[in-house]
Parts: sequence; C-alpha cells; structure tokens
Amino acid sequence: MAKLKPRTLSGFMELLPRRQAQFDRMAEILRRTYALYGFTPLDTPLVEASEILLAKGGGETEKQIYRFTKGDADLSLRFDLTVPLAKYVALHQNELTFPFRRFQIGKVYRGERAQRGRFREFYQADIDVIGDGALDIINEAEIPSIIYQAFTALGLKRFRIRLNNRKVLSGLFAALGLEQRTGEIMRAIDKLEKIGPEKVAAILTEDAGVPIETADRLLELLSAPEPLSALAPYRGRNDLLDRGIEELETVVRCLSAFGVPEDHFIIDLTIARGLDYYTGTVYETVMLDHPEIGSICSGGRYDNLAEYYTDKKLPGVGISIGLTRLFFVLEDQGYLNEDLPSAPADVLVLPMTEELSPAIAAATALRRRDIRAQLYTEPKKFKQKMSYADKLGIPFVLLLGEDEIAQDRVSLKNMRSGVQSLLTLEEAAAAIAQSLAVSAAPVREPEQE
Amino acid sequence: MAKLKPRTLSGFMELLPRRQAQFDRMAEILRRTYALYGFTPLDTPLVEASEILLAKGGGETEKQIYRFTKGDADLSLRFDLTVPLAKYVALHQNELTFPFRRFQIGKVYRGERAQRGRFREFYQADIDVIGDGALDIINEAEIPSIIYQAFTALGLKRFRIRLNNRKVLSGLFAALGLEQRTGEIMRAIDKLEKIGPEKVAAILTEDAGVPIETADRLLELLSAPEPLSALAPYRGRNDLLDRGIEELETVVRCLSAFGVPEDHFIIDLTIARGLDYYTGTVYETVMLDHPEIGSICSGGRYDNLAEYYTDKKLPGVGISIGLTRLFFVLEDQGYLNEDLPSAPADVLVLPMTEELSPAIAAATALRRRDIRAQLYTEPKKFKQKMSYADKLGIPFVLLLGEDEIAQDRVSLKNMRSGVQSLLTLEEAAAAIAQSLAVSAAPVREPEQE
Repeated sequence: MAKLKPRTLSGFMELLPRRQAQFDRMAEILRRTYALYGFTPLDTPLVEASEILLAKGGGETEKQIYRFTKGDADLSLRFDLTVPLAKYVALHQNELTFPFRRFQIGKVYRGERAQRGRFREFYQADIDVIGDGALDIINEAEIPSIIYQAFTALGLKRFRIRLNNRKVLSGLFAALGLEQRTGEIMRAIDKLEKIGPEKVAAILTEDAGVPIETADRLLELLSAPEPLSALAPYRGRNDLLDRGIEELETVVRCLSAFGVPEDHFIIDLTIARGLDYYTGTVYETVMLDHPEIGSICSGGRYDNLAEYYTDKKLPGVGISIGLTRLFFVLEDQGYLNEDLPSAPADVLVLPMTEELSPAIAAATALRRRDIRAQLYTEPKKFKQKMSYADKLGIPFVLLLGEDEIAQDRVSLKNMRSGVQSLLTLEEAAAAIAQSLAVSAAPVREPEQE
Repeated sequence: MAKLKPRTLSGFMELLPRRQAQFDRMAEILRRTYALYGFTPLDTPLVEASEILLAKGGGETEKQIYRFTKGDADLSLRFDLTVPLAKYVALHQNELTFPFRRFQIGKVYRGERAQRGRFREFYQADIDVIGDGALDIINEAEIPSIIYQAFTALGLKRFRIRLNNRKVLSGLFAALGLEQRTGEIMRAIDKLEKIGPEKVAAILTEDAGVPIETADRLLELLSAPEPLSALAPYRGRNDLLDRGIEELETVVRCLSAFGVPEDHFIIDLTIARGLDYYTGTVYETVMLDHPEIGSICSGGRYDNLAEYYTDKKLPGVGISIGLTRLFFVLEDQGYLNEDLPSAPADVLVLPMTEELSPAIAAATALRRRDIRAQLYTEPKKFKQKMSYADKLGIPFVLLLGEDEIAQDRVSLKNMRSGVQSLLTLEEAAAAIAQSLAVSAAPVREPEQE
C-alpha cells in the first residue's frame, strides 16, 4: 500500500510527551490560580455561527478567520475567547448571577502567516468579571494581583505589569483641546515604544494637526517618571480626566493591599491598548529580560461586553494570556524547568516471574495510594526493560521476582541514585510518595547578577 | 443599534456554570485514573490536513466531516482521536518510547443530524497502548480494569464490561466452513441485540447462504450462557480459534488479579465491534439499568494503528468514552450528584467598612491556604450581598466589620446551617477547609431494591 507522509499543519503546535507534561502543568497552575480568586470554569464551542463571531465585523479579524459552510450553515472557528463570552452572557443573562466571574483556557484560531513563534491554533487563558449595569473599581485593582500571582506561581520573577487608564488619556486629550482627534492621537501613542518619541511627535503635528508645543507637552507628560505627580496640575480641568486619575490612584493604592510588590507594577501613561473597546484601567505585562516579546498578558476595563447582542449594559474587566506563545518563548529562552518530573509514571512495576498476580496486585495497591504505576509485561531482556524506564524518566522501578515474593517484599530501584532496596510494599510506597513531594515551579529564570 | 440574537449552534453543548463544574469534575476523574495507570497526556490539533484525516476514506466519515479550505489548504476538523494518534505516532515514531501509552480528552466533530443526546461537537476520552511490532496480551487484560476503575471513580455502580475476541469469531466461522463469508456474518451478528436471533438467522441463511443447521449451531453457540465451555468442543480445529480462546482465557484470568469484580464483566461472543480494524479482544460497556443507551465505553485490540502513514507495524489496544454523551445521559437520568460543591468559590469575603485592606488581606491569606476566596465589593444592600452567595451556592460568607477588625477576628457564616461565629482568621480557614474535605463521587445511582 502506498503510504501517505504523516504531517502536522504548520502553525499548529503538537508537543512530544515530555513537553506536553510541562505545558499541562503550566495550564493547571493558571487554572488553580484563577479558581482561587472565585472564577468559575467555562467551556464554549470552538465553532460558532459566523454572524455571531463577526458581529463587530471588519479589519484583520475577518481576514484571519477560519470560515466555512456545512450544509447551509455559515460557520467559523473562534478567534478569541471574548466574543464567545459576550454571546454566552447575552444568551444566558437570566440564568447567570452577576458579577459573573469566569475563566476559560481554550484554543482559538487565526489564519496568520505562519512564522517562528506565531501560531494559527493557540491557547488563550482568559479571566473576566462581568457586572450587571455596574462594576466596582476594586475589580480593576484585583486583576493585576491575579496576574502577579499567576506568573509567580509559574515561576516567573522578572516581569512587570504596566497600568494605565483610558479615561486619563481621553480626558487629557480633551484638557489639551484635542478631543476631536482622540482616535488618531491614541493610535500614534500606541506606536511610541516601537518608533520612538520623535517620529510620534512628527505624526502628531504633521498628520493629526496637533500644535508643536501641545505635542511636546503631551509626550513629556506621558513619559514623566512620576505620572501621578505630572498629572496633578491638570486636575479640575476635565471631569473624565479627574475620574481617570482617581481610578488610577485607587488601583495603585489597593495593589499593595493585594500583595503586589512595588517593583512588579508601574503606571505607564503610554499604554493605550487598542482603540474603542477599553474605557478604564488597561494592562500589559512584560518580561524585563525579554522586552522584544511584547506583552505576555493584556487586558482592561470595558463598558459594554455584549452590545452587539443585547441592550443590557454589561461592563467588565478581563485579561488574556497567550499561553501557547508564552510556552514557546519560555522554551526558547531555556526557562522551562527540566528537573520537574514529566514521566508518564512514578514507578515501573516489573514482574520477574511467569505468574503475574503479585505484580498486578502491587501495581493496584500503589495506585490506591495515588502513585502512578505502570505494569510492564513485554517479553524483553532485563536490560531493555530498565532502559524503558530510563528513557521515559520514570524515577523508580519495582522488581518482583521469586525471592521477593517468597519474602513478601519488593525490590525498589531508585533510577537516579541506582540504589536498590528490599522493602515491604508499604515502605516502597512511602519512599516513592516522599520523592514526589518535592514541588517546584515549571519555569526557572536564570539568576540575576 | 440593531441587536443580533445570540445563539449557540445546535448540537454544540454549552453548559451553565454549575453543570460545567460537574462536567469538569468527571473529566478530571478520568484524567487522574488514566494517569494512575501510566498514560501520558496528549493534545493534538483539532484541525488537520484533510488527506491525513481521510487517508482511510469512504463511508459515513466522509459525509459527516467538517471540511473546508483556507488559502490553498484543504483542512478538516478531527472526527475522532484515533486517526490523529495514528498520524502522531507515525510522525514521531523515532522520538517516542514503546509501548507508548497515551490518554487524550478532547473535542471531535461530526456533522450528524442534530437530535436529543446527539452532538456535533463532543468530548471523547481515549486511552491507547501502542507497541513497536509486538504488544503483550496483558495489555488487553489491563484495559477492562481501567474501565472498571474509571467508572467506579465516577460513582457508577451498575455497569458491565462485555468482552469478546475477534480471533474467536473469525476462527469459529472458519471452523464451521464459513471463512468466505466472515464479513457478512460479522455484520449480521452485530445486529443480534437490535433485531433478535430469528431475523439474524434469516439473514444468515437467506442472504449469506449459511446452511440452516450451521446458522442455528452458530447462534446457539454465540449465546451460550457459558461461552468458554461451549467453545471447548471446537478446540484444535482451527489455529486462529485456538489462539482466540487462549487470549480470552488469559484476559478473564487476569481480571480478578486486576481487581475487577465478577459481576462487572462478562464474555459475550456476540460483540463484534466493526469490521476490519480490531483483531483481538474487543470491549463494550453497558449500564445495566439503561441498556437503551448502548455502549458507554468501547474499544479493542488492533494490529496496525498507522498503516496509512508508515510501514512500521504498530499494534495496540485502546478504548474511547463518549464523555459528552455520557454526561448528557447521566444528567437526563438524574444521576448527577447535586450535593457536590459546584460554586465558583468556597467563601465570599464581605468587607463592611470603607477601608478594604483588612478584607483584601483576609482573602489573600485564605487563598494561601488553598481556599477559593472571592472578594465582593459591589455597593449593594447587605441582603443582596448575602443573596449573591446564596444563589451561587457559596458555602461560607466571611464578614469583616469595624467590630471584627477591632478584635482582630472575622465573622464566619455557614450558609447552610445559618450559624455565624466570631473566629480568628486561622479558625475560620480551618472551618472552611474541614467542610471541603468531604469528598463524594459526581455520579449517584438510585439505590437498588
């Protein structure tokens, strides 16, 4: 029979078992962290009606989306977790209790040009808090503490959360007499990190018609080392600006109560995050030693989650971690902790007699103690059996020969130390359990000098 | 703005939070059970090249598949987890260690006519053991013990695993001089449960040309109450039959060592499971009180996992649980244990003062003890706050007013009993943790008389 060359689509991550175990551990830490803050897990279809996903329409989304028909249905793969959430909340609004806090870790699809570190199928790990008509500012202050906890639990240390408030930006533009050009100015400021202040100033003055001295004042203000002090003289000139400053102050004041160390967050007035969706606090998170990666966790406050589907006002705040990309970056930088157990089993049970019942019983007893035990019964040479455990990184081998059975003992070999001991099954289980108790984070940053 | 009516596609399950928590708990139990037996978790793309998924081609699959193009790529959504596994093992054969044991819990897609209890997007929960050229029979004996453990851990009691061996069937047909008609006879036997022995006998004699007395003998044999005894007279007549009987005996003998109670499995010679894929032991699992549901876990032994992609012989054995359908059936039958906690948090922390720091600190401290704590700061009336906890089923509310703060205490209200106590935070954490320790299975069958 002619064989078909097996292949996986480009841009679709598929991991070998060891890497998969590491990826799953990271996802599990996010899941646990989110759950600790009272977020409920959600799972929505990967396929939705195209009209639902494209309700907002236009732009890059429409070009990148995987869209197709089945029968007479016009379907699309979801390209983020926010639009399906909006649909879910609008659809089930009468059955949900608000504030509704949900997390979702799931795959999304974007038909981008495949390149290193860019994926067409990738995991996002999102949390959102949705209010019914109103949502307290404290929710905006809690979000950075969840980001901090999540990344710390993963093992990351040198990261920083950048905070801004869209009301501050919009209010400031208005206070400077630029309210007619908010969109244009916002887009220009978004480019600050990429093209630098000179070029942004040129765009502001030449394209957006901002007077030179106003553009200079704005850029100086936005990059002031003490943003809240720099903003102080502008208080009282514009309501939106005043509210924005107040919100920013509240968020910053709460952060220490929430346990976020001062060197892990910073107010950065240049963070704009898109154009029309966010209306309050916005977040970005950068790895200090890898600014080139860009933000690894972004989000913000919005006023209307589901305006395309319902008249109900659903304000919210949320963040998204691009988990596949983050994993790829950490792997690439050598940050993955390779010492963590990623073997499929904690112990390989090797029967050395024809009669298998004692080995089966031993494996069953170990599993009852929550020890992952694999029974190995292939008719191979002893050396090959040990090599199997070795290749998979299984830390213990339990040998059951006639001698052991006669003495009601087992031989437990520690594959790392090479030490083999004759033990009762109880003692062996205790030894294995003890070695498993060592816990460490999946990410290990190089030490700073 | 005109609103778009929010909707979820028919046949695509989307659960409310409480149900989602129950579903996730079931998936987690399967994951833990599979891991205890030394299976490694795998995650493969939901989208594959159509030529890969349809390598085998033909039949229902081709009609049901979601197939589409993006640019010049011909893509499809996976319709099961076996074909992607075959591709994965063929593609990565030099990087894997055999026997390769993997589990995968993931969504698959079939464009079937949507009807109650039938899904177009649904979860399968699969395990497979793949050998490199050979795979010991003990693997076929271990599989039913994993099925037994998995369903028992879920809380199911009245289920039975039906075992057969394809070599027994094929060998028996040969011994009866019917080897030319194996396919036809297998298809007819597959219908036994559905249409009864008379109609099957008619098909055998009229369509397949089996002599009447042979058909009668075959049907009598297949439905004999003691299949192994009934088969005994046929030993020595056909090699394949002899090997099949031996395998079946080995599997049954090992099952008690593996701890599967006798009333939870049965040899059933009428189980055929498809036509050309399986070559040894085959499994079905039925709920004794709901035979109408059909098999809730099926699988078997095969000789060539990946014959379309590689010349390497990769024999294996595997099973699949249709998790979405199983969940739907259990919900429908009232089997879901509604007493299990499905709230998004273990405790709702209610600050009763302007200053939030003590409440934030309390929530943070509780989370450090692995207690899921939600801080509630919306400016609502006290009654509405308590009602929020009540609606979500959050079992405890922790109140922090001026009195509590002055005394360095917290008020903990048990929402079920209504009892409120003034405690140290330590004591409150201990009380909450203790109430969480009650563990129960997600499924609860009605008591049998």
